[in-house]
Amino acid sequence: MASVSRSVLKTEIDNITEYMAQVGRQARAAAGELAAASTQVKNQTLLGMAEAISASSDLIRQANELDMAAGRESGLDDALLDRLELTDARIEEMVDGLRQVIALPDPIGEISGLAYRPSGIQVGKMRVPLGVIGIIYESRPNVTIDAAALCLKSGNAVILRGGSESLNSNLALAECIAAGLQSTGLPAKAVQVVATRDRAAVTEMLTMRESVDVIIPRGGKSLVERVAAEARVPVIKHLEGNCHTFIDDGADLEMAIAIAVNAKTHRYGVCNAMESLLVAKGMAAEVLPPLAEQLLALGVELRGCKQSCELVPSMLKAGVDDWGEEYLAPILSVKIVDGVDQAISHIAAYGSGHTDVIVTEHWARAQQFLREVDSSSVMVNASSRFADGFEYGLGAEIGISTDRIHVRGPVGLEGLTSQKYIVLGDGQIRV
Amino acid sequence: MASVSRSVLKTEIDNITEYMAQVGRQARAAAGELAAASTQVKNQTLLGMAEAISASSDLIRQANELDMAAGRESGLDDALLDRLELTDARIEEMVDGLRQVIALPDPIGEISGLAYRPSGIQVGKMRVPLGVIGIIYESRPNVTIDAAALCLKSGNAVILRGGSESLNSNLALAECIAAGLQSTGLPAKAVQVVATRDRAAVTEMLTMRESVDVIIPRGGKSLVERVAAEARVPVIKHLEGNCHTFIDDGADLEMAIAIAVNAKTHRYGVCNAMESLLVAKGMAAEVLPPLAEQLLALGVELRGCKQSCELVPSMLKAGVDDWGEEYLAPILSVKIVDGVDQAISHIAAYGSGHTDVIVTEHWARAQQFLREVDSSSVMVNASSRFADGFEYGLGAEIGISTDRIHVRGPVGLEGLTSQKYIVLGDGQIRV
Repeated sequence: MASVSRSVLKTEIDNITEYMAQVGRQARAAAGELAAASTQVKNQTLLGMAEAISASSDLIRQANELDMAAGRESGLDDALLDRLELTDARIEEMVDGLRQVIALPDPIGEISGLAYRPSGIQVGKMRVPLGVIGIIYESRPNVTIDAAALCLKSGNAVILRGGSESLNSNLALAECIAAGLQSTGLPAKAVQVVATRDRAAVTEMLTMRESVDVIIPRGGKSLVERVAAEARVPVIKHLEGNCHTFIDDGADLEMAIAIAVNAKTHRYGVCNAMESLLVAKGMAAEVLPPLAEQLLALGVELRGCKQSCELVPSMLKAGVDDWGEEYLAPILSVKIVDGVDQAISHIAAYGSGHTDVIVTEHWARAQQFLREVDSSSVMVNASSRFADGFEYGLGAEIGISTDRIHVRGPVGLEGLTSQKYIVLGDGQIRV
Repeated sequence: MASVSRSVLKTEIDNITEYMAQVGRQARAAAGELAAASTQVKNQTLLGMAEAISASSDLIRQANELDMAAGRESGLDDALLDRLELTDARIEEMVDGLRQVIALPDPIGEISGLAYRPSGIQVGKMRVPLGVIGIIYESRPNVTIDAAALCLKSGNAVILRGGSESLNSNLALAECIAAGLQSTGLPAKAVQVVATRDRAAVTEMLTMRESVDVIIPRGGKSLVERVAAEARVPVIKHLEGNCHTFIDDGADLEMAIAIAVNAKTHRYGVCNAMESLLVAKGMAAEVLPPLAEQLLALGVELRGCKQSCELVPSMLKAGVDDWGEEYLAPILSVKIVDGVDQAISHIAAYGSGHTDVIVTEHWARAQQFLREVDSSSVMVNASSRFADGFEYGLGAEIGISTDRIHVRGPVGLEGLTSQKYIVLGDGQIRV
């Protein structure tokens, strides 16, 4: 196996355009067969992949060590090296992930809404794969397996373009995927890992409108922005999580503090962490001092509006840039607002459409917030940290969409499908 | 009213980029208010539009006459002039269309799937507008009203860019729309008609990623292809309707002939007309001669494969280009295939993903066709002419999507929406 990886890497690809066009044609050709594959065959394939990974963990770690060594040589920082590394535990996690995807219900073929029309035809919808999905991701090699599994279970062919620093690892994993596909006779090109570090391959993928149905970028903001700006193919993207918690007048004090502390401090570097706290002015004097005390004790830097700083003198003064900032760090911006209307308009102005929360005991304001906040997840009396495919019961997620069309919020198997119409008749014609 | 139209037209717009950016900002600003508008207010607004159109039919026809005169002068052909013309009957149709949209259920705010998770939170989805929709269309001015009504009912702001030859008509209709918006106090910029003939306005619209959430092109293939190629904004597009009917072995002879004749000859210039007939070889000798006789008698030109021509000598020989052709005319390509597998692969190779039909009495082959044909509508024993928003019970359609993501097939109100997640808790935090 390892020798195959090396031979692929020795082969320089001269013509990236032609190479990617071929990858695209192969994916499109495989997609039809994959769409028709039974649940059993797809699950058996995923099991074959899991077994191949377990059996090849030494070879996978050897390939990963090549990437790690090259990464150290080229001066990757510790955080990137950590993401890149495949330990035995992480390899085991990939295998577990495959078993979880096997256990998920197959969304494909589900028929809904089948009803008779006055003409006598029955009209309904059948859930079908999207076709060919392109995934563009950065350094974590586990995405190779996670994304391949979700795409395959949802009947889609997939083209995987990982970070160039993890190519050896990804190609080793690709061979385990190939072994799974081979074990059931599904097309070998159903899952393809782009076997070049040349960034021109990404540019090609983004414009292959004939052979790629949707691109999902997974990575930092600069990657996602580049993909969104350059793509001529539909993109399911997640740009930022500038999540708000609004503490309403009359909110339960204890609940408000618990939710805010959890949303900010449960984990800092995640997209569903609270980055900005809004407090109704009638509630500020009561809630801000004890909440600030807890957050400061946990090491969170607070950056407040003028009135917040008056209530909590140890706050720093927020600058105009703070309201739109996704800190991904123990920093929180704090603003006192008149009430729910101003909270909603502040979120509309500065939010990122990811997840926003109201803490309230007031029925009508809860309803208004749910309806009017235009974010992929809107919550009442819960921590924004719940915005997650596992917590929502999707089983697994390939990302979180902050887009408006096709799918919003955590994207699981269903987000990788669409619905076609089916019509059942017994000879009807239009009159 | 007419004076306003003229003054707008006299004003040359110097800076199209700045003008369109302003249109975009205004649409985005209006979208929030529209998303929160109640069903009653939206219906009242649509009623106000209908009343304004009825009251202004003379002025609308005067504006339309300016367009017609300019069209005649510039040598538009009769078909285009016919599409452009607003007769009293067509104005009445627009008013009827508005009343039909009023009668449709409001999709916005619908909550589905709300269920408890192990953490104690309830997770569900709420149907919400897409935001700002751009419609790019050609000569029919009725699209101005139809599209505005569907976008408004689904809570979306809309930017309408009609054909330059119909600008006077569209601006007159825009004033009726404005009267409706004014009657209920919805934002005046919820519906905007681009008030310039400059094609640069289209180019701008296609790249306004901040202010336009989706573009829907309505028109001929060259318009749609241009939009799809240039757009940096998601597009819901309908490229072609190269619809197939496959007559399976053992199909009911009478039913097969009736469906094929209806699918081909009910109307020729429509996207859901049959353009290609596939016949299982075991059935060909029985069905092709009597079917060909009927079609030829109705004036349809038949272009067959070699075997078809042997069975029906009056057929022309099909060229290689015939299989992919959307004739929109009394022409039909005819091919004899081995059976359902070859029919499915022929459709995959040459079809356009619009609507494809099997006529069969065989359970397993019907199921296989439904599952494996990757088209927006797949039918068993019914005429492809049923692929239509009204026939499907959507009430009205803004177009038919042959895309794979977001929405496939006829696009009604629901296709102009998406679903966000809502989470209802009573103080839950992540542990």
